[in-house]
Amino acid sequence: MNYSMIYYLGMFSIAVFAITGVIATKEKELDLFSIVFLGLVTALGGGTIRDIILGSYPVFWVSDPMFLWTALIASLVSFGGGRYFSNLYSKFLYLDALGIALFSIVATQKTMSLGHPPYIAVIMGVITAIFGSILRDILTGRPTLLLSKELYATPVLIGTILYVGLDYMTHHSLFVIPLCIVFIFLFRSVAIRFNITYPSWLCFKK
Amino acid sequence: MNYSMIYYLGMFSIAVFAITGVIATKEKELDLFSIVFLGLVTALGGGTIRDIILGSYPVFWVSDPMFLWTALIASLVSFGGGRYFSNLYSKFLYLDALGIALFSIVATQKTMSLGHPPYIAVIMGVITAIFGSILRDILTGRPTLLLSKELYATPVLIGTILYVGLDYMTHHSLFVIPLCIVFIFLFRSVAIRFNITYPSWLCFKK
Amino acid sequence: MNYSMIYYLGMFSIAVFAITGVIATKEKELDLFSIVFLGLVTALGGGTIRDIILGSYPVFWVSDPMFLWTALIASLVSFGGGRYFSNLYSKFLYLDALGIALFSIVATQKTMSLGHPPYIAVIMGVITAIFGSILRDILTGRPTLLLSKELYATPVLIGTILYVGLDYMTHHSLFVIPLCIVFIFLFRSVAIRFNITYPSWLCFKK
Repeated sequence: MNYSMIYYLGMFSIAVFAITGVIATKEKELDLFSIVFLGLVTALGGGTIRDIILGSYPVFWVSDPMFLWTALIASLVSFGGGRYFSNLYSKFLYLDALGIALFSIVATQKTMSLGHPPYIAVIMGVITAIFGSILRDILTGRPTLLLSKELYATPVLIGTILYVGLDYMTHHSLFVIPLCIVFIFLFRSVAIRFNITYPSWLCFKK
Repeated sequence: MNYSMIYYLGMFSIAVFAITGVIATKEKELDLFSIVFLGLVTALGGGTIRDIILGSYPVFWVSDPMFLWTALIASLVSFGGGRYFSNLYSKFLYLDALGIALFSIVATQKTMSLGHPPYIAVIMGVITAIFGSILRDILTGRPTLLLSKELYATPVLIGTILYVGLDYMTHHSLFVIPLCIVFIFLFRSVAIRFNITYPSWLCFKK
Repeated sequence: MNYSMIYYLGMFSIAVFAITGVIATKEKELDLFSIVFLGLVTALGGGTIRDIILGSYPVFWVSDPMFLWTALIASLVSFGGGRYFSNLYSKFLYLDALGIALFSIVATQKTMSLGHPPYIAVIMGVITAIFGSILRDILTGRPTLLLSKELYATPVLIGTILYVGLDYMTHHSLFVIPLCIVFIFLFRSVAIRFNITYPSWLCFKK
């Protein structure tokens, strides 16, 4: 895996998140503008907040419009195709798991390549992965993922910490990237399949 | 219409949005601080998000405090005068239509004058027009305009696309600005008056 | 009080806000990740928005990670210790009053030291003090403090105006800082204790 592949991986994850963003809006009665807008927010929102906090200007989709067009086309295709491939919708959570795995590792790698320390890279990996969905949920009045009981951000947090650790130990081996993406995807998928939550002593109970 | 007129048009649209922001808070029981704060957020929020995404620092109301004072005075006058001119409130939606028409075209023009391509200018025109109201609604727990059925952002989107097209064809003729403002205002007003929505095949239905 | 003390005062206020952020999440059933994340958002969110609006990069907790670690440790300790010191929770509102008093004056001082005019410093003082809690409430679906009737932001607004006035008159005497912190804390505490609100002619009523 080389750096050009990281670029296309980032592009692919944008498309995945745009699709999940559009699917998530199915719960509400929305029109085409709102659906596509929320697809774009889900796909581009997390990375936009990361770039703004880091002061990394221009924001990624302003400096490279391919990200914008990818998100737009994926949103439109997802809207149009969604009627015919409704069984794809049952796979929504696993598609989203793939999205957060790709997003977080690509963002962690990008943040470190900008010269930031590993703990900032981990935070940016988490923010990039979860804030697109959080923004979409706030805009549509749904409870955000912070209120869900199932493990969601925790696999991302552990996976990005694993990534910065392995990256340091292996001197930036590009092999580490796919490994950590697979780790987060499998961890999150297991949490979905077996409904894994934190033990109660690590939660607040009413 | 010259560039100095664009400046005053921008100032006028800030005042219009501050007024609509204050009027919109009438649904909730709020005190003077919250009302004026929400007036400022409605008037200045969209342009602030635009400037932050573009990395256009200092943000417009920090670099030119006249925008801040205009929004503050318009909010206070709207709060004080609102008791006596309650028939103005029935015109709220049309005043808001004027606000989004002015805001979006002025913002699109500003973004292009900063050297950004037309599609970024269109996105910034839409963001500037709708995010002040969206922020106000999020802060007060109201459903955002993305959930409303009536055409709202779509006239803005079409109007700003029309603007960048005509601007390119007429070589920056300033005549294009008032034309597109009137177009958006009339399109949105017709949508309000006749309750125009997207056809159902362009919507998700539960 | 010298400038090094302002630094430690800022650090202390970060810890106070992280603790209030964690305590505030007790109303919801949340897991460790969400609790600590919301502690960080409450502690670092207001200052992050201030730095982003001012274009003051890198954002304070990216440039000085001590703020990040302080917020993280305070969140973890607050989560772990909260079970045993539940009487601390009854003092929550007064702890929060201390937090907004410290935050707003430190932020106002920081903004003026960056060369911004007093009215921008006042706005940034208010934004820094209230937006951490506002972000936390939006992320957890609670009504924001803008909807509460009790005086909350108003003591901050008056206290920061008092600060910029006294700072100008006394030529940056560091004595003014503790004075204004105490002023805001006492003003807000009186508002809590005696349930002080705006008079009804300064409110919108349904």
